[in-house]
Amino acid sequence: MIDLRSDTVTLPSDEMRAAAADAEVGDDVYGMDPTVTELETRAAEIVDMEAAMFVPSGTMGNQIAARVHTERGQEALVERESHVVRWELGGFAQLSELQIRTVDGGPRGIPTPEQVREEYVEKTLHRPGTGLLSLENSHNYRGGVAIAPEKIAAAAEAAHDRAVPVHLDGARIFNAAMARDVDVTAFTEHVDSVMFCLSKGLGAPVGSILAGDTDFIREGRRVRKLLGGGMRQAGMIAGPGLVALENREHLADDHANAKRLAGGLKEIDGLAVQEPETNILMVDTENTGMTASEFLERLEDEGVYGIPREGTVLRFTTNWNVDADDIDDAIERIADLLDS
Amino acid sequence: MIDLRSDTVTLPSDEMRAAAADAEVGDDVYGMDPTVTELETRAAEIVDMEAAMFVPSGTMGNQIAARVHTERGQEALVERESHVVRWELGGFAQLSELQIRTVDGGPRGIPTPEQVREEYVEKTLHRPGTGLLSLENSHNYRGGVAIAPEKIAAAAEAAHDRAVPVHLDGARIFNAAMARDVDVTAFTEHVDSVMFCLSKGLGAPVGSILAGDTDFIREGRRVRKLLGGGMRQAGMIAGPGLVALENREHLADDHANAKRLAGGLKEIDGLAVQEPETNILMVDTENTGMTASEFLERLEDEGVYGIPREGTVLRFTTNWNVDADDIDDAIERIADLLDS
Amino acid sequence: MIDLRSDTVTLPSDEMRAAAADAEVGDDVYGMDPTVTELETRAAEIVDMEAAMFVPSGTMGNQIAARVHTERGQEALVERESHVVRWELGGFAQLSELQIRTVDGGPRGIPTPEQVREEYVEKTLHRPGTGLLSLENSHNYRGGVAIAPEKIAAAAEAAHDRAVPVHLDGARIFNAAMARDVDVTAFTEHVDSVMFCLSKGLGAPVGSILAGDTDFIREGRRVRKLLGGGMRQAGMIAGPGLVALENREHLADDHANAKRLAGGLKEIDGLAVQEPETNILMVDTENTGMTASEFLERLEDEGVYGIPREGTVLRFTTNWNVDADDIDDAIERIADLLDS
Amino acid sequence: MIDLRSDTVTLPSDEMRAAAADAEVGDDVYGMDPTVTELETRAAEIVDMEAAMFVPSGTMGNQIAARVHTERGQEALVERESHVVRWELGGFAQLSELQIRTVDGGPRGIPTPEQVREEYVEKTLHRPGTGLLSLENSHNYRGGVAIAPEKIAAAAEAAHDRAVPVHLDGARIFNAAMARDVDVTAFTEHVDSVMFCLSKGLGAPVGSILAGDTDFIREGRRVRKLLGGGMRQAGMIAGPGLVALENREHLADDHANAKRLAGGLKEIDGLAVQEPETNILMVDTENTGMTASEFLERLEDEGVYGIPREGTVLRFTTNWNVDADDIDDAIERIADLLDS
Repeated sequence: MIDLRSDTVTLPSDEMRAAAADAEVGDDVYGMDPTVTELETRAAEIVDMEAAMFVPSGTMGNQIAARVHTERGQEALVERESHVVRWELGGFAQLSELQIRTVDGGPRGIPTPEQVREEYVEKTLHRPGTGLLSLENSHNYRGGVAIAPEKIAAAAEAAHDRAVPVHLDGARIFNAAMARDVDVTAFTEHVDSVMFCLSKGLGAPVGSILAGDTDFIREGRRVRKLLGGGMRQAGMIAGPGLVALENREHLADDHANAKRLAGGLKEIDGLAVQEPETNILMVDTENTGMTASEFLERLEDEGVYGIPREGTVLRFTTNWNVDADDIDDAIERIADLLDS
Repeated sequence: MIDLRSDTVTLPSDEMRAAAADAEVGDDVYGMDPTVTELETRAAEIVDMEAAMFVPSGTMGNQIAARVHTERGQEALVERESHVVRWELGGFAQLSELQIRTVDGGPRGIPTPEQVREEYVEKTLHRPGTGLLSLENSHNYRGGVAIAPEKIAAAAEAAHDRAVPVHLDGARIFNAAMARDVDVTAFTEHVDSVMFCLSKGLGAPVGSILAGDTDFIREGRRVRKLLGGGMRQAGMIAGPGLVALENREHLADDHANAKRLAGGLKEIDGLAVQEPETNILMVDTENTGMTASEFLERLEDEGVYGIPREGTVLRFTTNWNVDADDIDDAIERIADLLDS
Repeated sequence: MIDLRSDTVTLPSDEMRAAAADAEVGDDVYGMDPTVTELETRAAEIVDMEAAMFVPSGTMGNQIAARVHTERGQEALVERESHVVRWELGGFAQLSELQIRTVDGGPRGIPTPEQVREEYVEKTLHRPGTGLLSLENSHNYRGGVAIAPEKIAAAAEAAHDRAVPVHLDGARIFNAAMARDVDVTAFTEHVDSVMFCLSKGLGAPVGSILAGDTDFIREGRRVRKLLGGGMRQAGMIAGPGLVALENREHLADDHANAKRLAGGLKEIDGLAVQEPETNILMVDTENTGMTASEFLERLEDEGVYGIPREGTVLRFTTNWNVDADDIDDAIERIADLLDS
Repeated sequence: MIDLRSDTVTLPSDEMRAAAADAEVGDDVYGMDPTVTELETRAAEIVDMEAAMFVPSGTMGNQIAARVHTERGQEALVERESHVVRWELGGFAQLSELQIRTVDGGPRGIPTPEQVREEYVEKTLHRPGTGLLSLENSHNYRGGVAIAPEKIAAAAEAAHDRAVPVHLDGARIFNAAMARDVDVTAFTEHVDSVMFCLSKGLGAPVGSILAGDTDFIREGRRVRKLLGGGMRQAGMIAGPGLVALENREHLADDHANAKRLAGGLKEIDGLAVQEPETNILMVDTENTGMTASEFLERLEDEGVYGIPREGTVLRFTTNWNVDADDIDDAIERIADLLDS
């Protein structure tokens, strides 16, 4: 089985398993788990923020950020196809009663400063004020595109000029940094908070990080408790998370594999392939006469897995459980499938 | 003073004042105000729905509809520039925790059936389901355009095919019906609930109507109570409302006046005028070198009032306190202003 | 028919009707209704607060206060049987997501300072902080008892010592002042906001007042808009409200009538009567062998109306549509009913 | 250090660590983690419910239950001192907009059926209906008392008679079962859902279980996702959870140790001790002249840890990291402290 559904499906390495087994732990609700503390300290360092917090999922990280940054009765400015809009069950409205205002960030999923300025809403008798700008990098739905630091900076600056805080959903921020060949701080220096996942490309079994300034994280810990994200001897998963955090270099392989896959699939009649920038590859099956779901169903019989988007569009995601040979193998099986 | 800011500014007629003074009243929270009951009965009849309810404002009517139609954790599909999105303080999120999904309804502010189908979201593990389609006719922000019954029907049908209820913000629904030369039921027959205002073009001092089926209105009365819209001897304002409701014909004058105003302003250098369909006229002052606010500020000195939108766009709204002579007068003052 | 269900059922006087008919009005959403402005100014003066706002109902006034005083994630301290807990559809939770903390205020419905101190919750990692103390005077459910100014002062002081704002649900605050023979400011000087109803004992057809400091009312106007309480030519009901506001003296008659009714009913076998302090009289029918509902149903056939509470307890409320003769008449009919 | 603060502070056993290291895992968001599935299956079996779900914390389990059982606009009936009221940041209001109605469950923290019947609120125009009864066993704040199955049954029956679902916060349900010498199903058979913690007395590092019927758990998985509790290779913590789940017998030692501690402390002048029923021991330091906090601060210098409640009351919790010798040691140190 060659599993290209997501980079969340990866199995922990032996080193991670050992880190779980050997983690020095304590009750993290009392702030006494040294492994969690070490992870949070290291994570804050990497994104160059004052403080960080371990959370069970990226969704929780994003939702905490929205709630801490905003006040009752505000709007959040978000890209139309961003994860927080599409796949978090309407959490901004459900958990923080925020009206979202969506902007179309185009094929790269990044609002321009003009859009931020235009869609910014001043608090009046009739209108909620804008209380948050939430960005995403790399942008999942847009095909894992790696937004340039200067684009993040420009959008953030437009928001900051209006005293609007900026959150970065950086679930795959290290992929973006790798693709852009910059340090991750090239993104995070422009925003007020960032969430990134340990459990995606980095390969940790469980968990994400939310980072920001000290006050933000202090209040964030309350919201984490409210949402039920307070865990006890969380060092058991923070330990593997630390291992993952220090293994960011292997993302280069995922990116190379995505390009390799793209190269192979382009040669196959019937498939249209979006040039991958990170570890996500969008493929359109329109000319095969099959919907994405039909195509993937038949492909599963060949042991290759992807995820359908809408209609004829599907997503493959390379990850560290898949190597170049697997990619070649996958290409071959796909070619055979369409050939038969 | 020629007040063209809105049709909400009209002063009650002598007949309305008499209707207030003479209203037979009772405690409407106990359902015992005969004038309110008469108004609600008559209103339901006019829109051909099972039941109707008197509410202090159109905003409350829309918000009640959203809350009654939906369940916790859903999305509402709304036109990007609709009143419920722009000017109701994010009520869908604040009061009903709904994530809004906006579609761009174009210059006429009406989602196509294709848009409804595309933006419809099925309830999954990751996504809130779509729980409401909210339409608006005439569409205020788009310039008071009167959407055709078949467009309403088509969008509503697309929603109903997916078991999504449809609410119509018909704050100015009688203007739309007049412009389209149809009975108002040509719109309301396609939707599950409709709100219309007595206090806009119809000229009543206070109040709006929310209509729907019996169960919807029964639960709506609870939400009205929750929001604080339960009133006592409300017949004092329902009485004038009844008078207003039977004086729908005068809207023809408002529409004629809007066209008259448009005709006059088109002749004036520097003003770009959107052809009015109802009682709302959008004017662009760009070529005057003034923003809408600057222009209106100077115009106020001449005793003519309008409302700025954004940048160089402003809105004039004809209403029954303004007659053809006033319009001619306004045109002249505007011409003089730009001439000097 | 002698209607003792509530003081909300009263019909407007001729003077009020004339005030509606003759009111100078404008669009109050734009702040341009002189009668509303006059009412708000006068109301603020009477309770000696910086500002006041006209709202369609007491419920809306209370709910706005809760939302403006608090922040997301707080608790409100409330008396167990207060109106905001019992009869406002859980609005504190629904509209402001407040966890309520109820204290048992005993037969007089007033938390002691000790209770306030004990039930005050400091904001911690695990606990919402207390964000509001809401009091009620006169206390409806407790039988219209008029709480002494010093009790209000003591509870409020305990809250203020912890930086907790205090709202007073004074739906019938003038009844309390009359009963305590003090100016209403003897209560309002201790609290941060007060709501009182024009449409209860004062006899206005519609509306209540929320008063507080300027910032509070400014933000309150936004919440009023959100809830749908923004009305247009509201002077039509504010006018009668002004008349009502200046006719506070007649409450003395209501109180005398309540005592008269109590005196009469005490003489009747089978009825237990709570000594009335204001215009509310609680009667227990236990010894008649009837529940309150059964008793009232039979009494309705005699043309006398009250409201059942729970089990064998019912409430009569005197009001300005009922005079001493009516009271005597009611007593006689009740005596006859139980005699037969 | 003898840590008696909580049973959440226990360190995982070697067996648990091995279970983490060796867990067969997959992406549980896709339902593909066999260890999580095994844990959920086993947990459902133990409480004899149709389905179960692994959640990061007990708080999340309780909050999911409240949200799934109820509809918008309802009340939840809860014991005044229950965990969901005291230490979950007002989550019922924050996350599900529920108004809580608290009953005083007395020293054993269990509402009587009479209380349930009395406090049940029927949905009316003015009142939210009761949508949930939430019970707690063992009851933490009341001193870890183990409520009898028949008391749970009686309260639940009163609720069910009114079609109100019942949730059991069984964070320490196995302690209650052990103390009552019954199978845990003696409690769970009466309720619609139960949450229990793996990370308390059972000793697992992280996680809790929410169980109920199949539909409840299906919808619960959506709410878990919304709150951010969807985890990936969660088998790494579910594995230790499974070990913990099969080691319920050792709770007998915790209970014996609590009694041993109680016995020892009773002999010490100045300490008043509540007879422990499970692993929680409440001690009053009033006669030592110290507050609980002062006492515990000094005790920390001696290496013994507890948790202050209010004033002079503190809590010790025995747990599997503490054996009989530790208990004797703790008694001695406390005696010395008070002797000096």
